[in-house]
Amino acid sequence: MGKIVCFPALSEEQQQRILDAAPGYTLNVGKAKDMNRAELQEAEIILGWSPLITEHVLKKQGSLKWVQVWSAGVDNLPFSDLEQQQIQVTSANGVHSIPITEIILGMMLSHSRWLRQAMLHQQQREWKAPDQPLPELHGKTAVIAGVGEIGSETARILKALGMNVIGVRRSGKDVPNVDRMYDMSGLHEALGQGDYVINILPLTDETKHLYDETAFAQFKPGACFINVGRGPSVKTDALLDALNSGHLAFAGLDVFEEEPLPSEHPLWGMDNVLITPHIAGSTEAYKDRALDIFLENLEAYLAGKSLPRNPVDYDHQY
Amino acid sequence: MGKIVCFPALSEEQQQRILDAAPGYTLNVGKAKDMNRAELQEAEIILGWSPLITEHVLKKQGSLKWVQVWSAGVDNLPFSDLEQQQIQVTSANGVHSIPITEIILGMMLSHSRWLRQAMLHQQQREWKAPDQPLPELHGKTAVIAGVGEIGSETARILKALGMNVIGVRRSGKDVPNVDRMYDMSGLHEALGQGDYVINILPLTDETKHLYDETAFAQFKPGACFINVGRGPSVKTDALLDALNSGHLAFAGLDVFEEEPLPSEHPLWGMDNVLITPHIAGSTEAYKDRALDIFLENLEAYLAGKSLPRNPVDYDHQY
Repeated sequence: MGKIVCFPALSEEQQQRILDAAPGYTLNVGKAKDMNRAELQEAEIILGWSPLITEHVLKKQGSLKWVQVWSAGVDNLPFSDLEQQQIQVTSANGVHSIPITEIILGMMLSHSRWLRQAMLHQQQREWKAPDQPLPELHGKTAVIAGVGEIGSETARILKALGMNVIGVRRSGKDVPNVDRMYDMSGLHEALGQGDYVINILPLTDETKHLYDETAFAQFKPGACFINVGRGPSVKTDALLDALNSGHLAFAGLDVFEEEPLPSEHPLWGMDNVLITPHIAGSTEAYKDRALDIFLENLEAYLAGKSLPRNPVDYDHQY
Repeated sequence: MGKIVCFPALSEEQQQRILDAAPGYTLNVGKAKDMNRAELQEAEIILGWSPLITEHVLKKQGSLKWVQVWSAGVDNLPFSDLEQQQIQVTSANGVHSIPITEIILGMMLSHSRWLRQAMLHQQQREWKAPDQPLPELHGKTAVIAGVGEIGSETARILKALGMNVIGVRRSGKDVPNVDRMYDMSGLHEALGQGDYVINILPLTDETKHLYDETAFAQFKPGACFINVGRGPSVKTDALLDALNSGHLAFAGLDVFEEEPLPSEHPLWGMDNVLITPHIAGSTEAYKDRALDIFLENLEAYLAGKSLPRNPVDYDHQY
């Protein structure tokens, strides 16, 4: 009888969905540290990840055939061990597409539709309209740097809102709803076209301090910058300069070079900055959505087919 | 030679668009009060509205054939005089669909994505994540009360975001992107289904104090209320009670029974309320968009056809 071990605290209903989908399998739900070595070693399928898997399971040939990681990122997995034992790995990539698209849009609209300013006036009980008619997103240009699962969903919504959408991605390959796609060599050309520049790129050697003085100088005067990717992709001093000079009109920032952002940091006090504490991907739907990915893979697994959702390549490590 | 009189301060480029579309016509742009009586009386087409038209033009049979009002609403026009002289009236209905849809979405996301709370923490330089995973709009239900030009656009965007969309409109007729449409008799049944209830209804005898204690009691516990329609559609004391009791989780309000909202009003100080000062329709695109409507009508007018965009019915007065 096959054994499934699951680290995330699924509800009874969610557990039942797994049992219904895998007749003849047992399901053991609990924290990795609360399980004994045998329980881990006998697992054929593991949901989630723990360093204890490396320690107790990968050291010797066991029953493990497949790990469905519970996060979108798989940075720290022991890929050589996994490859050696030909253990398949799938990720939960895609669970963040919807919440991150929603916060990107919220940040853009909080600026363009004057909601931040209105909140400040509300605190003063002040009925004060803007001096100029407000801008619309409609007809403006958004540059999405990093067009994977999240960026594709963002592009779809921004396109529905009537924006021009420019994309930047490593491969440079077209995706739906992106009017023009650049590869990374075209980043600066792309940046110069954006009324809104949205960073969703993963952090790699290539993207570390990608947004430096030179990059911000390419931005259109009055452009807005949204970062829901990774903090170290931005050289924070260069961003501060671009905001202080007025070259950038607004930044919506969910991620920072140093997190938590230190309380003395000047970004906190800037009235053209909206700070959220690394919550862009936060969603009540996480478990259900990750479970959907697992169940789709599970059906294929039990049918002896290759896993369709987010198979991780040992070499590319994503 | 026909004469066009235009009250809105159009740019030279915008004026040229009119002249190019109407060969043989003159165009006189200026404020009504700065024009002499003859200038008004000789106009065949007027863009905009002024009480001086009633005073100087409608008192006697003149050259006027068509008034393209520059606003979406036509509440205060002298329809009997206009009808008597068979002067056609068209409105700028539709210019607000995009900006109002954008502010509705911004208000919803400022709550659901925790941006209001994050702004308050930012003022305290406080890095503080929410206690619970954040909700998504995706999969939730929006009730749009008033599905005309604006509501149809709002429905289209909310549907793209994966929401269930329920509509309420006088005719009860279906429109695209609304999963279920009610007529006004079904309002309370509709309200009970909304995670977000969005009021865009015009103000009429029927909609005055439509949102009273009985109506708010129908709302789902924890629902959010957005009002970008008209202030007097809401009985403010009933709304205050629903917010204070926690029955409503949030209200985003652009319009109020009394405007400006008095500085001592309790709504200002409520932390589950976002107040904007009647700016939902504000848009930099107003003139271009209203001009598009006029030019489309102008083409038909010059061809002797009936005016296609927003002809106003003398009896319905909208």
